[in-house]
Amino acid sequence: MAEGDRIWKNARLLTLAEGAPGMGLEEDGALAVRDGRIVFAGPQSDLPNDLAGIETIDCQGRLITPGLVDCHTHLVHAGDRAREFEMRLEGASYEEIARAGGGIVSSVTQLRAADEAELVRQSLPRLDALIREGVTTVEVKSGYGLTIHDELKMLRAARQLAQQRPVSVTATYLGAHATPAEYKGRNAEFIRDVVLPALKQAHELSLVDAVDGFCEGIAFSPDEMRQVFDLARSLGLPVKLHADQLSNLSGAKLSADYGALSADHLEYTDDEGAAAMAKAGTVAVILPGAFYFIRETKKPPIDLFRSHGVNMALATDNNPGTSPLTSLLLTMNMGATLFGLTVEECLAGVTREAARALGKLAEIGTLEPGKSADLAIWDVERPAELVYRMGFNPLHQRVWRGMPTF
Amino acid sequence: MAEGDRIWKNARLLTLAEGAPGMGLEEDGALAVRDGRIVFAGPQSDLPNDLAGIETIDCQGRLITPGLVDCHTHLVHAGDRAREFEMRLEGASYEEIARAGGGIVSSVTQLRAADEAELVRQSLPRLDALIREGVTTVEVKSGYGLTIHDELKMLRAARQLAQQRPVSVTATYLGAHATPAEYKGRNAEFIRDVVLPALKQAHELSLVDAVDGFCEGIAFSPDEMRQVFDLARSLGLPVKLHADQLSNLSGAKLSADYGALSADHLEYTDDEGAAAMAKAGTVAVILPGAFYFIRETKKPPIDLFRSHGVNMALATDNNPGTSPLTSLLLTMNMGATLFGLTVEECLAGVTREAARALGKLAEIGTLEPGKSADLAIWDVERPAELVYRMGFNPLHQRVWRGMPTF
Ligand SMILES: [Zn+2]
Ligand SMILES: [Zn+2]
Repeated sequence: MAEGDRIWKNARLLTLAEGAPGMGLEEDGALAVRDGRIVFAGPQSDLPNDLAGIETIDCQGRLITPGLVDCHTHLVHAGDRAREFEMRLEGASYEEIARAGGGIVSSVTQLRAADEAELVRQSLPRLDALIREGVTTVEVKSGYGLTIHDELKMLRAARQLAQQRPVSVTATYLGAHATPAEYKGRNAEFIRDVVLPALKQAHELSLVDAVDGFCEGIAFSPDEMRQVFDLARSLGLPVKLHADQLSNLSGAKLSADYGALSADHLEYTDDEGAAAMAKAGTVAVILPGAFYFIRETKKPPIDLFRSHGVNMALATDNNPGTSPLTSLLLTMNMGATLFGLTVEECLAGVTREAARALGKLAEIGTLEPGKSADLAIWDVERPAELVYRMGFNPLHQRVWRGMPTF
Repeated sequence: MAEGDRIWKNARLLTLAEGAPGMGLEEDGALAVRDGRIVFAGPQSDLPNDLAGIETIDCQGRLITPGLVDCHTHLVHAGDRAREFEMRLEGASYEEIARAGGGIVSSVTQLRAADEAELVRQSLPRLDALIREGVTTVEVKSGYGLTIHDELKMLRAARQLAQQRPVSVTATYLGAHATPAEYKGRNAEFIRDVVLPALKQAHELSLVDAVDGFCEGIAFSPDEMRQVFDLARSLGLPVKLHADQLSNLSGAKLSADYGALSADHLEYTDDEGAAAMAKAGTVAVILPGAFYFIRETKKPPIDLFRSHGVNMALATDNNPGTSPLTSLLLTMNMGATLFGLTVEECLAGVTREAARALGKLAEIGTLEPGKSADLAIWDVERPAELVYRMGFNPLHQRVWRGMPTF
């Protein structure tokens, strides 16, 4: 019997298995784990006999869901932008804020000034906030360094997080996030000198699991993104894209053309974009925290995604400028309240679909045999309670790879 | 030296004292407590010598604010309305929800079915969520019982909470919250048979600190509220009112006429109402959680309150139907993000002004000598961080009546 062999009995299971009716709710359920992997998840009466003798935990009727997956964060960053937030509330213009050193420039400056250990130190409290709410996998992007050295530093810090806490971290390279001051007006050179070579080095160092970009009038054009995606493809790395957040540059379509794992934000995505995403199997990652925080009014076209059968995930987009949010529970509430997502869409969005958006659906995201035993055990009677409450954490226990590690 | 004698050194103090510039921020501050009361709060260099020998705590530069005050909650309730929330997201009409047993009827039914101990048991996790974020005083209303017996039961449960946790609880009688099914269409009789006699009994039993009502087309008219307020006045009890939330029935003006401690919600309050409140010293209690949760679009007239000099507080309005919110930190973020309140208005709104809305400003709400040593000590560099983040709790320590009781 190995570390990580356990049975959870008297549980209500929400398997979130694809196609299972009612989110796969099993009222009298049990879940068994061997070597950190689920070997059984179903009715307690069907529990195989050969599992006798394994350590058994009585859940007393609590609800078990897959561990939550935050599939879009900029969690590794330095400093905060609280001063900018304060100034804006006092009526300061963007120009005044910029003059006071605000905006993304401020995040880049602070990121460059911090070493890897300092980045980790500052990022751990944010990671801990996610973990305390049942998150077992978190995606972390680079993109505030914008030099080869500083992008690699961010990715190393992301890898470090997984050493410091019992959580799975996937690292996404986002060199094409913004053009730094020293390359202002020279995107082509920035891509040639920094974005592409940093990606090559990061890949050689095994620091990167996926490649992302910010396709927007204020950032990079579709043609510029194609250069980055072409390199990613040649390196065998999956891609994803910050697409159609502030305007429609057909970022959703571009993502689909590259078979992207996900396209994210999508407030301005049109019918053609949604159709292309559905066909390509590209997940729509909905980020209500940023929508709320920057007081956006244009909502992502949820009905369009539904009618085309686009899978939808939900994530915090944790970042200092537009979404200082470290709660996936609150993210679900925002998805429901602001965008009208159903309870099932919200819960699938932070488990199964978030796993799909990371290309890890075979490994995590549902309670099914063969998957990693990443679980969240909740003190709730009804799954909807996880979406309905605001600022309340009913997590009883978190389990990562079979180990209770709350 | 009594229990509760302590000095906190190397602190940044945010006194929130009335009229103090910059929220009374003291960068090199110290705070001294004797017998649970603040005896000094100011520059460390001015700390009186006669305090030598008292237990000293090094704050290492952390920020101390007054303990937070949640001045409007329906925290004592039974069950939840998650099923109703879920149905609404699935497109159910109000009629369908009502037929399925939803709406306030459901909260009344569940409240009546629970005994006092069960009410306390269900309410404690909500209270604990507030406490974990630095709340030291919480107001709790009755109003789901709607019989003499059940209203008294709710008020007793509110009193019990203060026995079970190190927190100050003020109990508000809200018999005029809704007309129960058995009195449908007979408000006058409900007031005569239940609302007024229950208030008299609650007062005799010392179960009530203030009297509230819901003045709205779907609840009680201004004339009906006057009957309740007249009784409150004759008993010497202060009043407050759920006013102008869904329409303008001149609830703000009515509150001011009675010298109410506060008028709450106020989305539809007009210039006359704001002027009357300013003159009467009635606090405007802003409840962004309910606004957000029920997807209200009409915002309270913040600029009107500012121009008239109406004091503004912020509260969770914690309740199962329209604001299942248990975070004052998130409430501040909502106040800023949804209504454009400044950082100072938010922080004063959950401390000094919330205390004023409870008639307890002489006792709590600021860091000033003579007041109860109710403190929140935060791991933040800048006060604005308490408003800016979403779903993140930087509380280092909570102090209630001089005792660290996190
Ligand atoms: Zn992002
Ligand atoms: Zn209320």
